[in-house]
Amino acid sequence: MEAELKGLLSDLHSLKDSLRDPSHQELLDKMRSRVEHLSMAEKLTNMQRSKIKDMSAEVVDSNPYSRLMALQRMGIVDNYERIREFSVAIGIGGVGSVAAEMLTRCGIGRLLHLYDYDKVELANMNRLFFRPEQAGMTKTDAAVQTLSDINPDVVLESYTLNITTIQGFETFMSSLKNKSFRPDKEGIGVDLVLSCVDNYEARMVVNQACNELSQTWMESEVGACSVISFELESVSENAVSGHIQLLVPGETACFACAPPWYVVASGVDERTLKREGVCAASLPTTMGVVAGLLVQNTLKYLLKFGSVTPYLGYNALKDFFPTMEMKPNPQCSNAACLERQKEYILAKPARDAAAKAKMEAEELVEPECLHEDNEWSISVVDDSDIQGPNGSSSGALPEGLVHELPSADEFQKPSVSEEISTDIDDLEDLRKQLEALNN
Amino acid sequence: MEAELKGLLSDLHSLKDSLRDPSHQELLDKMRSRVEHLSMAEKLTNMQRSKIKDMSAEVVDSNPYSRLMALQRMGIVDNYERIREFSVAIGIGGVGSVAAEMLTRCGIGRLLHLYDYDKVELANMNRLFFRPEQAGMTKTDAAVQTLSDINPDVVLESYTLNITTIQGFETFMSSLKNKSFRPDKEGIGVDLVLSCVDNYEARMVVNQACNELSQTWMESEVGACSVISFELESVSENAVSGHIQLLVPGETACFACAPPWYVVASGVDERTLKREGVCAASLPTTMGVVAGLLVQNTLKYLLKFGSVTPYLGYNALKDFFPTMEMKPNPQCSNAACLERQKEYILAKPARDAAAKAKMEAEELVEPECLHEDNEWSISVVDDSDIQGPNGSSSGALPEGLVHELPSADEFQKPSVSEEISTDIDDLEDLRKQLEALNN
Repeated sequence: MEAELKGLLSDLHSLKDSLRDPSHQELLDKMRSRVEHLSMAEKLTNMQRSKIKDMSAEVVDSNPYSRLMALQRMGIVDNYERIREFSVAIGIGGVGSVAAEMLTRCGIGRLLHLYDYDKVELANMNRLFFRPEQAGMTKTDAAVQTLSDINPDVVLESYTLNITTIQGFETFMSSLKNKSFRPDKEGIGVDLVLSCVDNYEARMVVNQACNELSQTWMESEVGACSVISFELESVSENAVSGHIQLLVPGETACFACAPPWYVVASGVDERTLKREGVCAASLPTTMGVVAGLLVQNTLKYLLKFGSVTPYLGYNALKDFFPTMEMKPNPQCSNAACLERQKEYILAKPARDAAAKAKMEAEELVEPECLHEDNEWSISVVDDSDIQGPNGSSSGALPEGLVHELPSADEFQKPSVSEEISTDIDDLEDLRKQLEALNN
Repeated sequence: MEAELKGLLSDLHSLKDSLRDPSHQELLDKMRSRVEHLSMAEKLTNMQRSKIKDMSAEVVDSNPYSRLMALQRMGIVDNYERIREFSVAIGIGGVGSVAAEMLTRCGIGRLLHLYDYDKVELANMNRLFFRPEQAGMTKTDAAVQTLSDINPDVVLESYTLNITTIQGFETFMSSLKNKSFRPDKEGIGVDLVLSCVDNYEARMVVNQACNELSQTWMESEVGACSVISFELESVSENAVSGHIQLLVPGETACFACAPPWYVVASGVDERTLKREGVCAASLPTTMGVVAGLLVQNTLKYLLKFGSVTPYLGYNALKDFFPTMEMKPNPQCSNAACLERQKEYILAKPARDAAAKAKMEAEELVEPECLHEDNEWSISVVDDSDIQGPNGSSSGALPEGLVHELPSADEFQKPSVSEEISTDIDDLEDLRKQLEALNN
């Protein structure tokens, strides 16, 4: 449009030079003013805010970071601005696009949008993020358009490719390794990979890449049950459940250590289940909750606050949120996973020594905080020694008050992690049994 | 812009009539084609999809409802299209704007955006929904622009007002009562009110309106602790927690039955705590999760699937999700609440009779489903009678399989509801004690 408007101005100029009649001159001036109006409106529509060099905590309406930097003053995050140093790679399906928008609004340093070769369709409008006028664009192009409007400070890189092809896998690997954004960074070029893909094959590819690169990643899924079920249809196309999971190569189970139960049970993946003419249901609510939990865990992991959750399920029908931990499977079929497991075991003495040194350093520092003239003999008492009126450990309350809810610490998490880690040794046996059943 | 483009075309027309030189004619034709290009581009930018009369389950890329209607085929929702009959009133702050987008994408019948007299600022860009180019618009105008683009089938009504003024309260009440959308509807004009306001005073106003109208509503809050705390600052400006709550006048506690603990404890509301030059932190993740949980509960309530949750908390630091139920306070200070409580108690015999009749009707229907020639003596056994290998009640699994996670039914919810309903009787005493402490 800009070119057409410039062209019109120059055409008007030529006409004005060749016409002498005052009434023509008047009309041409009027037309010129119309074109200038149109140019102004065009500029306003495409106006982006200018980039911001440093994140400020200043409380003014024009500061897009004031509400985020306030996390520091509240003591939740030590250094929020560090978020600008981090690179996150993310796939942009239903969960990934919302997660990408959240990271962009949070001011992440660099976002690598990866790997969706789909186009935006009206059928995607039941989820957040894409808009009807973007129908027909590739999802990567539409995402870059929306995200760069929202926050021009974020470095966006997009790749439209299929990671399950050999060529696509190579591009994927080199995009993760690329360190041009922060050449001094340890390890590879990204800090975290968020796998927001929608099929088993692509998940196994992300798993392979991250195991090879020893790269921590998070998996997310909407619509698959975390509980064994043989009702394949409801498992694969269920819009009312989901989960997120943290995978640290060598330290936690990888995706191949414990494949989803329905794959083990049936020998088929989700894509086979999406029969022609049948589409999976999805809800913007479930997608929004899972994306929120995923990016919240990402922020906790990158900015080091709260507890990073190893696995969190979401059952929307009952508002039930199961958690668990999964240890790696020493018989995992993925060779890179076994290598990472070996490294993790070998590094145990060094980890223990570091932990001990850190603890000792903290013990040394603590006494310095005490006032020297402690005339009232006030000393710090461990919270857990104080028994509340309910026998709770969260400190004494004034008489007459009771806790409205149990504290998160008191909350009994289902203690399944132990069971899982024992059972996982038998996974290969189980897989064989199930394969035999299926054949 | 449309007017300027039309003006240009008519100006070109007049010039063409008054000029005879062929080179002028050629230039004018070129200009005309430029203006036509601009008009076409303008039309494409403002193009909205046309309205859709009936929701279809057809699986084509151009159907914005295919993924939602698929909920029926999956047996989650009986009649998804009923969503078009419902009216929901919603405030549009941080949580409300995301919730409004979710409801719009779900195809809700009518959405009443209520009650934000703020303008969009760059400082709002850390949350989902608003875009930087909307800075300076009223939030209601910006919301109508975005939402009508996303789904033109939704009937949008917006009111820019302050519900805590007498005039604003009257407009609020009449907007809720207005039945022009569905004149045959029982009760008032809306099916649900979602209070997404950010201060105690406005919540008390929504509470008053819903108690007077006997209207079910849901409350949502980001940043306030559900556990007693005397650290006021962290309570009022905490971006890493939130909750949703269902309020049924007479049946559950109203907002005045049990005001938030920090109000009881301090005698001040949140707005007083937002000192000059200090702003509350907020995160798009926490807002997204709370909005998702709120609209999910709304869908379950309106479309009758799953369990509608009476109260669900979210502690992001620990991924902890407390639930509870709160009974109404017979000493509530809100007169309309007491009236609704009386009505609820008086209606108990009728409710019991209806429940009994329903149960009997179901018992009568059930035997008809049995096959008459049951030669193998197969009969339906209550699931809870079957003990799994782990003593669980979810049915027998094939040998060698164990449940990966406990089922939602087995999950031990903290049993606080009983405690709460007892304590609530002493709330007035407590309030007095605390007031004495504060003075």
